[in-house]
Amino acid sequence: MTQSASPAPGPVPPDAAAIRAAAARIASRIRRTPLLRLSAADLGTPCDVTLKLELLQASGSFKPRGAFNRLLSGPLPASGVIAASGGNHGAAVAYAARALGVKAEIFVPEITGPAKLARIRAYGATLVQGGASYDEARQACEARAAETGALMVHAYDQPEVLAGQGTVALELEEQAPELTHVLVATGGGGLIGGMAAWYGERAEVVSVEPEGCPTLYTALREGHPVSAPVGGVAADSLGARQVGALMFEVARQHIGTAVLVPDDAIRAARQALWEACRIVAEPGGATALAALLCGAFVPPDGARVGVLVCGGNTDPASLNG
Amino acid sequence: MTQSASPAPGPVPPDAAAIRAAAARIASRIRRTPLLRLSAADLGTPCDVTLKLELLQASGSFKPRGAFNRLLSGPLPASGVIAASGGNHGAAVAYAARALGVKAEIFVPEITGPAKLARIRAYGATLVQGGASYDEARQACEARAAETGALMVHAYDQPEVLAGQGTVALELEEQAPELTHVLVATGGGGLIGGMAAWYGERAEVVSVEPEGCPTLYTALREGHPVSAPVGGVAADSLGARQVGALMFEVARQHIGTAVLVPDDAIRAARQALWEACRIVAEPGGATALAALLCGAFVPPDGARVGVLVCGGNTDPASLNG
Repeated sequence: MTQSASPAPGPVPPDAAAIRAAAARIASRIRRTPLLRLSAADLGTPCDVTLKLELLQASGSFKPRGAFNRLLSGPLPASGVIAASGGNHGAAVAYAARALGVKAEIFVPEITGPAKLARIRAYGATLVQGGASYDEARQACEARAAETGALMVHAYDQPEVLAGQGTVALELEEQAPELTHVLVATGGGGLIGGMAAWYGERAEVVSVEPEGCPTLYTALREGHPVSAPVGGVAADSLGARQVGALMFEVARQHIGTAVLVPDDAIRAARQALWEACRIVAEPGGATALAALLCGAFVPPDGARVGVLVCGGNTDPASLNG
Repeated sequence: MTQSASPAPGPVPPDAAAIRAAAARIASRIRRTPLLRLSAADLGTPCDVTLKLELLQASGSFKPRGAFNRLLSGPLPASGVIAASGGNHGAAVAYAARALGVKAEIFVPEITGPAKLARIRAYGATLVQGGASYDEARQACEARAAETGALMVHAYDQPEVLAGQGTVALELEEQAPELTHVLVATGGGGLIGGMAAWYGERAEVVSVEPEGCPTLYTALREGHPVSAPVGGVAADSLGARQVGALMFEVARQHIGTAVLVPDDAIRAARQALWEACRIVAEPGGATALAALLCGAFVPPDGARVGVLVCGGNTDPASLNG
């Protein structure tokens, strides 16, 4: 399935200056993640691909970029920071809070897996688990933040978070300026929103979502963010109920293609990354690649394709050795 | 424990021209593996480190570099190619043979683990398993080669193999010319021999071996290659009984420091790579890092240290998630 946006006029945050400022602000705190350039035969893709190995980032996903940018953009209250998350954002906020010496309280839903829970605890945060999905954890988190006065770090719908995640694109364009298409998995849309805002018209940023969590696909079809189902193998990282309002303005202008992939394609992509490259991606981290492998996205002739592998917080025993 | 070599005069193969020729010969067949630059806090190392992620190489280790260079250096007999291996070299020869359309027969010992056996079979090679260690598999392989006339691809003691493995150093120096020290795990010594031959005096190449397989450590102490014990967690990749004659001439001139690490340090390094970086190294692939983490090698002030993560053919379920 493919969904196309109808572009809207007007300025779109974050702008390039905000993303450049974020990159400077967080540079000493995050890793510049490497690329792996593969031929088509390596993974069985329709063309050569360049993988951006953002799963090697501190805390195991891209999320510390946005978390650090938010925490370093203003004074931090004595009550610390607070966040709701499927797991990766929570781990990143916990990691950033520990690095900056403040308390963190993290709300996650029941579907959050052991690898993510272990990370959040290992970074010393207070962990509160409850609710069926991210959206319920978010509501509990907002109620608690109103009590404590802690600084809320939204998983995707804050300008500082979008700008922080956009630094993935800034870095990727420096490393691989030749790319014409960049495939990115969408959950709440903070990552793809920041990246599409950076690239603008210089590369086509393609949204890939599981069929079980079609937030951006549905929003583009309806013309505004709407509630979508949350389910499937990648729900703990891509299971936002709807995309953020900020990212949707970016998407309307700059995301021309949004595709859906079945869970089986995500599982196959994850196994292919392990077998061909010894990369252990979580399901959400293998979702962008799945679109190339299952044909949900077919690159045009001559395309130079980048694929973001965005997270690795998973039990490695879940792979077929 | 540390052992220092007494340098000997005279030319040492392979020379830089042979390594450059190998790099050109194999370029279209192998991956240029990326670096991950980490701060000291990331892994708990005494200084910042640059990891060379050679475990992301095709077939899961550095070995295809030497295998392709050997196979592409002359005509291939109709009876194909043959090799003995702890597993990684066998997988690489099988991979290279399949790519070039020739038969491969691979001999491995009983200690070779399921991940390596699966790779060799998946690449379509004939697999013969027997003998307690690499050295016994090698004897069976040589007897079989005499019968069939297949081209023997030695795991470490052939000039083409050394030159091929030396391309890791050529690539690493291009990517990180600032390095002053490069830590490399030693088994039969093909990798470190090729790398030390490339670097010469431009960087100090440090040999790291498990206490259970001290081949180069013992050879440098005795002044010539001698049989050493074979045991411990990394024996399936570093368990050659003695270093090759070719690499030993390189080592006498260019490897000033050889250290040993206990198995517990190897296990801890492997777990640290997973927890801090989502990298799944096999024990032999984590051995070089172990020397930094356990203090077997202490970098001098101002050192800029590179660490080769040389293989990832392992069962990911053996990590603590």
